[in-house]
Amino acid sequence: MAVTESGEFRVEARAPGKVILSGEHAVVHGTSAVAAALGLYTTATIRPGMDDSCVLDLPQLGVYSKWPLKMIEELITQPHLLNPKPAHVTSYSESEWPQLAAFVERQVRSLSAKGAKGADAAVTAFLFLYTSILGLQPATVRVSSELPVGAGLGSSAAYCVALTTALLAYSREIELPQLPSVGEEVSTDRKIWFDVDEKKVDLVNKWAFEGERIIHGRPSGIDNTVSTYGYVVKFKKGQITRLHTQMPLRMLLTNTQVGRNTKALVAGVGERALRHPAAMGAIFKAIDEIAEEVVTILQTPPETARLGKSGEVVSSDECGPHPVAKTVQEIRLQELVDMNQGLLQGIGVSHLSIESICQITAAYRLSSKLTGAGGGGCVLTLLPHKLSSTSVELVKVDIEGKGFSCFEAVIGGNGVQVSCQAVS
Amino acid sequence: MAVTESGEFRVEARAPGKVILSGEHAVVHGTSAVAAALGLYTTATIRPGMDDSCVLDLPQLGVYSKWPLKMIEELITQPHLLNPKPAHVTSYSESEWPQLAAFVERQVRSLSAKGAKGADAAVTAFLFLYTSILGLQPATVRVSSELPVGAGLGSSAAYCVALTTALLAYSREIELPQLPSVGEEVSTDRKIWFDVDEKKVDLVNKWAFEGERIIHGRPSGIDNTVSTYGYVVKFKKGQITRLHTQMPLRMLLTNTQVGRNTKALVAGVGERALRHPAAMGAIFKAIDEIAEEVVTILQTPPETARLGKSGEVVSSDECGPHPVAKTVQEIRLQELVDMNQGLLQGIGVSHLSIESICQITAAYRLSSKLTGAGGGGCVLTLLPHKLSSTSVELVKVDIEGKGFSCFEAVIGGNGVQVSCQAVS
Repeated sequence: MAVTESGEFRVEARAPGKVILSGEHAVVHGTSAVAAALGLYTTATIRPGMDDSCVLDLPQLGVYSKWPLKMIEELITQPHLLNPKPAHVTSYSESEWPQLAAFVERQVRSLSAKGAKGADAAVTAFLFLYTSILGLQPATVRVSSELPVGAGLGSSAAYCVALTTALLAYSREIELPQLPSVGEEVSTDRKIWFDVDEKKVDLVNKWAFEGERIIHGRPSGIDNTVSTYGYVVKFKKGQITRLHTQMPLRMLLTNTQVGRNTKALVAGVGERALRHPAAMGAIFKAIDEIAEEVVTILQTPPETARLGKSGEVVSSDECGPHPVAKTVQEIRLQELVDMNQGLLQGIGVSHLSIESICQITAAYRLSSKLTGAGGGGCVLTLLPHKLSSTSVELVKVDIEGKGFSCFEAVIGGNGVQVSCQAVS
Repeated sequence: MAVTESGEFRVEARAPGKVILSGEHAVVHGTSAVAAALGLYTTATIRPGMDDSCVLDLPQLGVYSKWPLKMIEELITQPHLLNPKPAHVTSYSESEWPQLAAFVERQVRSLSAKGAKGADAAVTAFLFLYTSILGLQPATVRVSSELPVGAGLGSSAAYCVALTTALLAYSREIELPQLPSVGEEVSTDRKIWFDVDEKKVDLVNKWAFEGERIIHGRPSGIDNTVSTYGYVVKFKKGQITRLHTQMPLRMLLTNTQVGRNTKALVAGVGERALRHPAAMGAIFKAIDEIAEEVVTILQTPPETARLGKSGEVVSSDECGPHPVAKTVQEIRLQELVDMNQGLLQGIGVSHLSIESICQITAAYRLSSKLTGAGGGGCVLTLLPHKLSSTSVELVKVDIEGKGFSCFEAVIGGNGVQVSCQAVS
């Protein structure tokens, strides 16, 4: 690639969030879950540093920190951790990574700036990834996001994936795409995003997982995998399978803004399963079957599922007040969404706010389900591709009229991407 | 018993309605359902007739008909159907009954009076049971009911059971309990109801089933069985099992007053099962497991389920605004009710009105589910025995404030009972 060896440049990496399409909670009990990339991005920008300092700017978390590199160097005393050449990120065996991460985490935690809630872990993960990948090179890093924090949309994974990718690209571990000429104006609209080379994308995923470990302790690895590779991912008994689907879904995502306690919700389901093992086992099995059917539908080329030449059927709902042309796949997926939501209510993780949204969208013949832990959090509403933007606006007005916030998003699109430009 | 052989008397029979506690819809696909007697009664009263006539008075259906017995005799030409002695009700083998019923039905249908919707079938069933059991004896029959018609509460079965029992008692096929003296005032409050003798109760159930056949075509036999024997009945693959439970449940029954199309709802579930056989199969299995667990709980003596000396525990819900002492059995049943409702939503038979009621009662830490076909109809809310009547009133006010009608009822109580008194 034609990045000028001597010239300075700015890199950007954007990583998508994630939603769970199917299988939340039951996955804890050994069944399949299906997660997909959410087309809302966290973007990490790295530009050359000044004054031998490392600067971190996290506007959403209220963090702006500047550390002299000397200060970082003093804390990170083990020489083998200070390889200033980015090549070192591949010079450890995978089995050494956890110890490395634990050591660096301990060291850098004391550097963490105080910021908004959750900011400490974000700063610690940053310093870990920064020192491990860039070493002691001065740089200014800014991470901003379209994703709400703590809403089960994989914001921390998107943070780690975007940051890791930007750091690896800045360190030239990831090959950079063609740069525009120095000083050439690049508007955001015209910005060109490039996929990360297939050989390096695994490296992104592995480092991002280490960052997630710092933030979450014991992450499943689903979130960083979805954010890195994009599209759709199936998870079952610790095994992650990337699905080759090219059928992005159009969804409305509503944030109930009701706080959840994921740990308590998961524990509640576990206790209910102990009290009613046979019935709960059968419900988990039903959720598993739904997840498998979702996988099958997403992997079916749209052509073969079509009825007639137009590629769509008018749903049998057409007697309703809002008739909408839906493909056979959309009709099947809608029904599975309804079924899944009923089962999630059955295992006790729904919430009045979630059910309100389901009822609002049902009036438009649209199907909704909670996504993630439930008990509040976010709700997904499948939008048929033919649904007019006017109709979507009507639904949004209704939902927002009840005090919720919602936005349209593409689900199952690309993973992490990079962009760069020379700086004058 | 001391009924004066020569004296005239009036008999009354009251038969309870039924609710499905668990297993509706899934039962069509081969799983278990649990039904229980609902402590709302249909009462049939027979008093001596005048003018060689048969009089039928059905105030709820707007029917008042008087037929000269001659007219009935002319229509029913086959002599063996006109045995004036009631003993004939046991003189046919069971295999002959369906043909007998079909013949009489054809004959008496032309006699049916025009009345409110559904009244035709009620009149036809009456004439069938009347002529088969009493023959051509003059009598005046009045049937009134506390049960709403067409709400899935077994009103037609209660009608057939009460009528059959009153006819069999009036014909002395069922032994009559001690009569008060002629002219003695018997207030409704002091009226004493007697269970039907165990040897004759099967006869009631069989004739009532024939009446149900006239009204419904192909009834399952659950409704008349519950109304006849009372308590709780399990139904699986055509097999009806009476359960020996003495644990009546206290429930709030809400009529959504939303009309249902049972046939369409059952067909909809069947079609969904064809589209998603694995997932729907697992949901049916879950419903089956819930029904079996409900059976186990209802058969467990309350003592063994108790925690501590007081026989109750304060539910873990006590942090809520309406803490209530619940027994361990009540807590388990509540959870099963919640799970069952979620599964019914999952198979697509819930309705906005049903979910509204579930949400209202959930605010009081009470669990509700639809009962019967769904899509509207009735909703059951389990009331812990220790819940104060003031709290029940609050819930009722909230439910009625949304435009629904509701009433408290005992579920799982007695079956059909008779009472009689001499008339002067």
